[in-house]
Amino acid sequence: MKYSPHIDALIEQLQILPGVGPRSAQRMAFSLLQAERASGQKLATRIESAMTHVGHCSVCRNYAEGELCGICSNPKRQVSEQICVVESPADVAAIESTAQFKGRYFVLMGHLSPLDGLGPKEIGLDKLETMLKSQAVSELILATNPTVEGEATAFYIADIAKDLAIKVSRIAHGVPLGGELDSVDGTTLSHSFIGRQSVD
Amino acid sequence: MKYSPHIDALIEQLQILPGVGPRSAQRMAFSLLQAERASGQKLATRIESAMTHVGHCSVCRNYAEGELCGICSNPKRQVSEQICVVESPADVAAIESTAQFKGRYFVLMGHLSPLDGLGPKEIGLDKLETMLKSQAVSELILATNPTVEGEATAFYIADIAKDLAIKVSRIAHGVPLGGELDSVDGTTLSHSFIGRQSVD
Ligand SMILES: [Zn+2]
Ligand SMILES: [Zn+2]
Repeated sequence: MKYSPHIDALIEQLQILPGVGPRSAQRMAFSLLQAERASGQKLATRIESAMTHVGHCSVCRNYAEGELCGICSNPKRQVSEQICVVESPADVAAIESTAQFKGRYFVLMGHLSPLDGLGPKEIGLDKLETMLKSQAVSELILATNPTVEGEATAFYIADIAKDLAIKVSRIAHGVPLGGELDSVDGTTLSHSFIGRQSVD
Repeated sequence: MKYSPHIDALIEQLQILPGVGPRSAQRMAFSLLQAERASGQKLATRIESAMTHVGHCSVCRNYAEGELCGICSNPKRQVSEQICVVESPADVAAIESTAQFKGRYFVLMGHLSPLDGLGPKEIGLDKLETMLKSQAVSELILATNPTVEGEATAFYIADIAKDLAIKVSRIAHGVPLGGELDSVDGTTLSHSFIGRQSVD
């Protein structure tokens, strides 16, 4: 025992949070104890509520608090024939914040990773395939991450869509706007060349 | 609403934790949702328990789950006539881990900071003075931080103890072991000179 049973237990469990080691867990525990207790109690309640009430949308697999997520329950989005495939709910939020896309999403909640036991079924590709076969889909936009796993996942999904004669596209990768050429890694820069577009 | 009501509320409240901004709060929320729900529920329970059961030791002001902390309830420590004054429970743990000190502590839970409304009473100095007057104390060791506020607090407490003719000492400050002279700031280095000890 380092402090007292409840403090030690709290410090231990705070370390399930990403990026939190023993030292920052200790700092967090003391900060919670030193502030108004009501504020820490509110945090406990909100964690508990999220754990209990947040599930997955039955259509797109995004986080949802009922049967459907906010996007899938929107009649304007329901009629869209564009589906954008992303790895995570955070990606949905990032794309929504651009206000560029008015279609629907399909959230893989990960990417293909056979070594971790994540095959096509684990990332919902059976469900996606059923959707592509049974609904009118004019374009499937692949917005998985530009990582080895994200690219492999995109290729796998592209094959499914092509077999069903559905148009597939991949979001563009390249030098970020405002970025400088010499601060971008070589792989990104070569993607940026391969994906060059005519300016005339 | 960015995600869903419960997720947004969780992301907001996670930001009461020190060093946690919107982006890391979001990452933490998603990590909790993606892992086993039981693990997040356990975190909620442990926060709630700590908020409810952790109070302050009636003797030394350290965190405690009953009337007395683990140190003050230890008969061997109770008879010690040395009291070490520190700013925080984390300082107690740091000193305990050195196994150098077998006396008692007094935890200020802060330092004098008039601008923040922290005067002698707020950091428990009335209680400390009563203790010094009513108990046998052979030495008061001041282990507040070597910051402007910590030094000012140490001076203030030293005055109280001197009025009561109690021996007062201050922990040594200087170049950390394993540190290099030229990587230590000037104030530390001058402390290190002022506090030099004869080696004969
Ligand atoms: Zn949905
Ligand atoms: Zn105590």
